[in-house]
Amino acid sequence: MSLESILNAESVAIVGASKDPTKRGLQTIRSLVDEKYEGRIYPVNPKEKKILGFTCYKKVSDIEGPVDIVLVATPARSVPDVLEDCGKKSVKGAVILAVGFGEMNAEGKALEREVLAIANKNNIRLIGPNTSGMMNMHSGLNLVGLRDTPKGSIGLLSQSGNMALTLITEARLKSLKGFSYYIGVGNEADIKFHEYLKFLKNDPKTNVILMYVEGMREGRKFLQQAYQTSIKKPIVLLKSGHSEIGQRSAGSHTGALAGMSEVARSAFKRAGIIVIEKSDQLFPAAETLASLPPLKKNQIAILADGGGHATIGADILTELSIDVPELSEKTQRKLAAILPQAASISNPVDIAGGADADPTVFADCAEILLKDKNIYGLLIVGLFGGYGIRFSESLGLMEEDAAHRMGKLVKKIKKPIIVHSLYGSEKSHPLHLLRYYNIPVYDSLDVAAKCMGVLGEYENYHSSYQAKTNFVLNQGVKKIPEATEIISKAKAENRSALLEHEAKQLLALHGAPVTKDRLAKTAGNAVEFAKKIENGVVLKIVSPDILHKSDARGVRVNLRTEKDIRKAYSEIIKNAKEYNPNADIRGVLVSPMANAGTEVIIGTKIDDQFGPVIMFGIGGIMVEVLKDVAFRVLPISYNSAKKMIREIRSYPILKGFRGNPSCDERALRRLLLTCSDIIDSYEEIREMDLNPVIVYEKGISVVDARIILS
Amino acid sequence: MSLESILNAESVAIVGASKDPTKRGLQTIRSLVDEKYEGRIYPVNPKEKKILGFTCYKKVSDIEGPVDIVLVATPARSVPDVLEDCGKKSVKGAVILAVGFGEMNAEGKALEREVLAIANKNNIRLIGPNTSGMMNMHSGLNLVGLRDTPKGSIGLLSQSGNMALTLITEARLKSLKGFSYYIGVGNEADIKFHEYLKFLKNDPKTNVILMYVEGMREGRKFLQQAYQTSIKKPIVLLKSGHSEIGQRSAGSHTGALAGMSEVARSAFKRAGIIVIEKSDQLFPAAETLASLPPLKKNQIAILADGGGHATIGADILTELSIDVPELSEKTQRKLAAILPQAASISNPVDIAGGADADPTVFADCAEILLKDKNIYGLLIVGLFGGYGIRFSESLGLMEEDAAHRMGKLVKKIKKPIIVHSLYGSEKSHPLHLLRYYNIPVYDSLDVAAKCMGVLGEYENYHSSYQAKTNFVLNQGVKKIPEATEIISKAKAENRSALLEHEAKQLLALHGAPVTKDRLAKTAGNAVEFAKKIENGVVLKIVSPDILHKSDARGVRVNLRTEKDIRKAYSEIIKNAKEYNPNADIRGVLVSPMANAGTEVIIGTKIDDQFGPVIMFGIGGIMVEVLKDVAFRVLPISYNSAKKMIREIRSYPILKGFRGNPSCDERALRRLLLTCSDIIDSYEEIREMDLNPVIVYEKGISVVDARIILS
Repeated sequence: MSLESILNAESVAIVGASKDPTKRGLQTIRSLVDEKYEGRIYPVNPKEKKILGFTCYKKVSDIEGPVDIVLVATPARSVPDVLEDCGKKSVKGAVILAVGFGEMNAEGKALEREVLAIANKNNIRLIGPNTSGMMNMHSGLNLVGLRDTPKGSIGLLSQSGNMALTLITEARLKSLKGFSYYIGVGNEADIKFHEYLKFLKNDPKTNVILMYVEGMREGRKFLQQAYQTSIKKPIVLLKSGHSEIGQRSAGSHTGALAGMSEVARSAFKRAGIIVIEKSDQLFPAAETLASLPPLKKNQIAILADGGGHATIGADILTELSIDVPELSEKTQRKLAAILPQAASISNPVDIAGGADADPTVFADCAEILLKDKNIYGLLIVGLFGGYGIRFSESLGLMEEDAAHRMGKLVKKIKKPIIVHSLYGSEKSHPLHLLRYYNIPVYDSLDVAAKCMGVLGEYENYHSSYQAKTNFVLNQGVKKIPEATEIISKAKAENRSALLEHEAKQLLALHGAPVTKDRLAKTAGNAVEFAKKIENGVVLKIVSPDILHKSDARGVRVNLRTEKDIRKAYSEIIKNAKEYNPNADIRGVLVSPMANAGTEVIIGTKIDDQFGPVIMFGIGGIMVEVLKDVAFRVLPISYNSAKKMIREIRSYPILKGFRGNPSCDERALRRLLLTCSDIIDSYEEIREMDLNPVIVYEKGISVVDARIILS
Repeated sequence: MSLESILNAESVAIVGASKDPTKRGLQTIRSLVDEKYEGRIYPVNPKEKKILGFTCYKKVSDIEGPVDIVLVATPARSVPDVLEDCGKKSVKGAVILAVGFGEMNAEGKALEREVLAIANKNNIRLIGPNTSGMMNMHSGLNLVGLRDTPKGSIGLLSQSGNMALTLITEARLKSLKGFSYYIGVGNEADIKFHEYLKFLKNDPKTNVILMYVEGMREGRKFLQQAYQTSIKKPIVLLKSGHSEIGQRSAGSHTGALAGMSEVARSAFKRAGIIVIEKSDQLFPAAETLASLPPLKKNQIAILADGGGHATIGADILTELSIDVPELSEKTQRKLAAILPQAASISNPVDIAGGADADPTVFADCAEILLKDKNIYGLLIVGLFGGYGIRFSESLGLMEEDAAHRMGKLVKKIKKPIIVHSLYGSEKSHPLHLLRYYNIPVYDSLDVAAKCMGVLGEYENYHSSYQAKTNFVLNQGVKKIPEATEIISKAKAENRSALLEHEAKQLLALHGAPVTKDRLAKTAGNAVEFAKKIENGVVLKIVSPDILHKSDARGVRVNLRTEKDIRKAYSEIIKNAKEYNPNADIRGVLVSPMANAGTEVIIGTKIDDQFGPVIMFGIGGIMVEVLKDVAFRVLPISYNSAKKMIREIRSYPILKGFRGNPSCDERALRRLLLTCSDIIDSYEEIREMDLNPVIVYEKGISVVDARIILS
């Protein structure tokens, strides 16, 4: 069932309708009337005859006409009966407001499952439970009972009613933008984030999607949908709950898996989502994306009427990787012609009192700056909008003139202007005019600069868009029969992990360069195998019951003589038996000593929210002490393999540090892709751990590998 | 001359007084009148007779009565004559508004020097030039011409007039707090930041100092003064210009050395300054410190009326190292008794609709929470202040009741409350009442949480205050005659650096454990010295003309036989001559091979703003790739040595990583202190570079050392 018929419902029943003005059952009906909802409204309450002039029904199934959506405003325990009754009416969707479901306790979880089963059986799609409701601002289908929500083109998905209220209040007080839809996603019992996202992607009235997320149930499907959506419409998202206490709070709040892990952050960004970290930048980011033409290149000018704001603005933009390049000589000449001598005509431009008698100078400068071919956007910082307030009313009229000109300039030249004004929160008509022309105005310099960064980030994503990274697993496509056999054998033996040599065989079958090992069953075997190896050998215990070989003192390195090998062999066997007397010992693996190179670590696991992910880092201190690792949701492309290698802080080590040779980055990239293929091919693999992998100037070698089965 | 008589001047002359309402010369006189300045006002303008009823003088020296301060509102080139004339009147201070001095160009710099010389000669202290002026809010001495500045207890020092205007506007629109003084510091030609700071420290009307800084001329004196001030009155500071473009902008703006280096950041923090990074947190931080009792311990409760804000708040507080601990059972019981079942009574507390019918529940909860002995402060997040606006007017009266109770609670229980309200920027009487009771209210959750963090940071500084760290150099106190001789000898030879063995001798004289080296003049010498060394030796070229020994192929390691030593000796000499045919070769240093350990680097240099500073990091990748270093302004205490070692990210390496033994941290601390003593003793040393230093499980050894003289 498409969400269309629910979110654009043409008839609505309110179960729990009421005459009490403090109750949602009345507030909702009132707001439907206020918003001039054109569909049919059916209050449902066995005790009332009429509410606000609408005939009241005892139950949903008593209603004569069709009912698209039902708002259930009664307590949790009543919901199963209400839905059973809705089933009789072919209701398409229900919004369940009540708390006391999955977010509460085990009992609530059971109730949530029951409710979902009834909904499925009756083909009713559910919004919530534990939601503040939903609003379709264009049809007036306001099921939240919230007044004064401004209409506009921002689609809002939120897992917190209060955050939605914050964003709506901000829109109302500080902007001229508004919303197309608000959907309180709640516990995601039935309809998930990705389904709402798909709806908003196709909705002609929505041009930006704004999300507040605490945790999500189907992260991978969300990424797939986000990836398809973000290239058409920007998605701005804040995910909270990255601290332990935040998670505790989110857990009790939405019952969802929480945690803004590095995995989530990188996955969201890869799907083209603008991830916002500060809640006070969330609405402004959406407003800016809903308002302005793109910032085609990360090069902007700053126009200030005083030094302090220019300096701070430049600092922030630098952190956001937005360049503030030198202006062309021609531009500087043009500025010099209209600005006083004390002005700074390099970028940042400081008009230094040059607008004190005539603020239309702002529009003159804006025009000169945006015509510079190296300048793709403009950040105006300082007092604009306040000359009339602060100095004299006549200056205010000049500011209005400037605002009209700048508004038309943006439309014509298609380069963005963002304005910071310290009068941003005062009633300033010139600033109001700027907003009318879709030029955002903020009284926080940090927010204004961040919004320019957001435009740059979205455009960067667009221009480097890779159609291949679609977050879709094609499990099994590259499966190899011999590898499947290895896994099947382990499973048949009831083992939860492959033995080291099995893991390496599997890797080798997919083309990974692994050390050439052989399994010795006797000391004699080991000596014989070692003869064919030049550099000395390593012996390692092989037992399904010993995963951590070093802990069992089951590893000996750098063995060169027959005597040493025999001695090491028997000691390893002895140690293993001591470590675990019941261990099933399969023998000892004989491997060549690896040449020195740069140790890296590659790991994969199944993330609770996103499914298979891969991790990469440089072995030892970098991973263990500095936690310097890169994550990607699998599968990865050649390009994302490249990016993940380069995004770790310690990447210069791979590039050849202190005159060391550089590492074979291509071989490393190929190995990451091989790991991606393997995980994509065998869904039986839960975890893979290649540690260490040694990267050489030419080539790469997997020295140890562990594969855990699910 | 104390600043008292200038900043509290009882008579003021305005040079450049005017009848033109767009001119500072009129605006200032008008604002002096408006602010009811009780001192004498003397307009100075040769062309006018009277301005606003005040008799106009042709020049300052024509004025009959005494003149404490002169506002010079005429262009830069006129300033020397004006000051010469002021000299005749025993004027105590002058505020120079004009631009076109040191911030402009070489010519401007010369003019600034000339002006300063005239001022010094005539005992006139200067504020500026390139300043927006100064205001004494309590006496009405408003020399900025800015109306509506709220009076209060915050002393404001700013190097940008626009930033001052921003902060003042913010105070006026969003708080009930105000200012005691505003001083536009400008180019610091004469009076420096530290002098203003000292004045504000002793000013009874100031209880918090708020600073916007782009660069400062006497950083060390500022630190000394800040260190003495911050223990009495909080100092809140934002320093911009940490990006290259920001520096360019600041340079053209104040002509000061800019750059928010790591040195500055750590020095400011050590001096007890609250360093703010985001401009929109600057005023709120000062407001909070000016308003609330201290947060005695970093443990607070969050009180929310919805999950989203609680989760985000917890995330931010965690980043700021503020704990949100579990509540006592008793507290939870008390909360459960007044809150609905859906509420979360663990911390963060979510009242979940529990205040919908009665917002006085906020006051009940606040009282319960602040009485919990593990809770030292309270952050309220969400809708408080908006129940009356959003739902019904009667709820607004209950909110007022709650505001009165919470205000009195803070006074009585002496624990801080900070409120985030999404109605913070609307006209809400309950929120106004909170502000009246000195409870800050912000509509940004980030800002509200940050302010709690600021309270915690200031209290942490107080409780760990070390009376010894005073930033005062006692140069020469620990001087040793033999070391002085080494330096003198080098100077006599016109050398700008000590030779390696001289540097090590100097270090050894101060107790540093250096490798035992001997200078060989012949290969025979080298062989003889090597015999006394067990582990093999290192040979290194010694020449005042070769600073980078490896570049000259002047180092050979791990030499064990006589043959190898002789061969290495002659090759080193040959290489050195090839590298620099004119090099003065003093011989070859014979050093023992150092045992393996952890390599660290210690360096000192003279920072442009703060004088001698010391740097510490772990050698190789950590310093060179990851720039993982700690800085301190010298001298350092035992405690700061300890802290700087522990603040690098790679500190776990020193603690013994992967089963390696831990390093001798005490020996490392002692060596850092030795370096501090040395820099403190010989002002001839410009730079010192100990690289590598090897730290063992027990002991430490300086393997190479370079000392550059000034």
